[in-house]
Amino acid sequence: MTPEEKLTEMGIVLPEPPAAVAAYQPWVRVGGLVFTSGQLPFRDGEIAFVGKLGAEVSVEAGYQAARLCALNAVAQLKAATGNLAKIQQIVRLEGYVHCAPGFRAHPQVLNGASDLVAEVFGEKGRHTRLALGINEMPLDAAVQLSLIAEVSD
Amino acid sequence: MTPEEKLTEMGIVLPEPPAAVAAYQPWVRVGGLVFTSGQLPFRDGEIAFVGKLGAEVSVEAGYQAARLCALNAVAQLKAATGNLAKIQQIVRLEGYVHCAPGFRAHPQVLNGASDLVAEVFGEKGRHTRLALGINEMPLDAAVQLSLIAEVSD
Amino acid sequence: MTPEEKLTEMGIVLPEPPAAVAAYQPWVRVGGLVFTSGQLPFRDGEIAFVGKLGAEVSVEAGYQAARLCALNAVAQLKAATGNLAKIQQIVRLEGYVHCAPGFRAHPQVLNGASDLVAEVFGEKGRHTRLALGINEMPLDAAVQLSLIAEVSD
Repeated sequence: MTPEEKLTEMGIVLPEPPAAVAAYQPWVRVGGLVFTSGQLPFRDGEIAFVGKLGAEVSVEAGYQAARLCALNAVAQLKAATGNLAKIQQIVRLEGYVHCAPGFRAHPQVLNGASDLVAEVFGEKGRHTRLALGINEMPLDAAVQLSLIAEVSD
Repeated sequence: MTPEEKLTEMGIVLPEPPAAVAAYQPWVRVGGLVFTSGQLPFRDGEIAFVGKLGAEVSVEAGYQAARLCALNAVAQLKAATGNLAKIQQIVRLEGYVHCAPGFRAHPQVLNGASDLVAEVFGEKGRHTRLALGINEMPLDAAVQLSLIAEVSD
Repeated sequence: MTPEEKLTEMGIVLPEPPAAVAAYQPWVRVGGLVFTSGQLPFRDGEIAFVGKLGAEVSVEAGYQAARLCALNAVAQLKAATGNLAKIQQIVRLEGYVHCAPGFRAHPQVLNGASDLVAEVFGEKGRHTRLALGINEMPLDAAVQLSLIAEVSD
């Protein structure tokens, strides 16, 4: 099953890849790697999850925010490759969680992104991960996420 | 126009690439990629922009701090390549903004770096970007910045 | 002297590489690069250094925490390569320090990691570095660290 078929089976329509919010590009390919810019939980042009984990955003909402960021990152990979079957490996997932003091459940939140990537890409979705807390996030987004992927021609 | 000619046209003299502040290197080349270490807004050996955005550092000063970090990063790329015309692509710009509570204008601050890179490298300067807030920054610097670039021989 | 011989000379037994704490992998190899996931200061399955620098964790303890993270990252590189002599270059060391307000000694803390890497790998251990402060860290760990390394077959 291709990643596109898997998305269809999951009932997911890949969103339009979000445009960059300033003077940069949403993805760059260099040799066999694609880097995405930091993805925010945009849905239909608006940040769908605003605020801090450990304050106004619950862990479950944070999980959904991370999943949405990952979906946007996958949309960038689709734009970069034209065909998600060209993704050979998700190399790295960097997850940044907007945290109020004392928050510790970064791993549970970022599993929202890791689980999506694993579902869509299977073995090729097995990635390394960074999980970090951020005090103040652009646009007050709950999560920011970046992917590095290996691609074939 | 080469990047060096463009810098001259912009009236910019590339600074000496700042030395690492501890037990590491300012840049490493691996295959066709150059990674810089995190660059701080050093000017003539001193941090020129100290403090937090949203407190003692204005957005305009932050923009200048990001531009200065980027200039130092370009100086590292020059040291790594000997000739900025060997830069094929700025792949990734990672921008870390030293933030007081509630600060949200990371994109405007980091455009100081993105704009410089775009001016100097043109199409080859079109990069992906991470924009993150940091609660406490080494040396109390307002911004930290890292570049990954694709280079040719 | 190979890195393994150097570790023996230093009296260090490489630990079992820590398992990922959630739905991801501890390392991924792509072409000539190995990326590790973010490494925490695990020792025998427990976080050995808990809390924030500038509060309950001293700079000396932070140095040891960073060294322990680096040791775990080296254990991941060993798992990825089977033989640390295949490491051609430590390309990048990303160090994240769990900071209380006003903490500025990130470089001294992260030298715990940089020094270990330099001792074990010699010239091949000369790396670029990011040094960032994090407000809230997964599992309340004092430090998180990631390595990118160039490897040969």
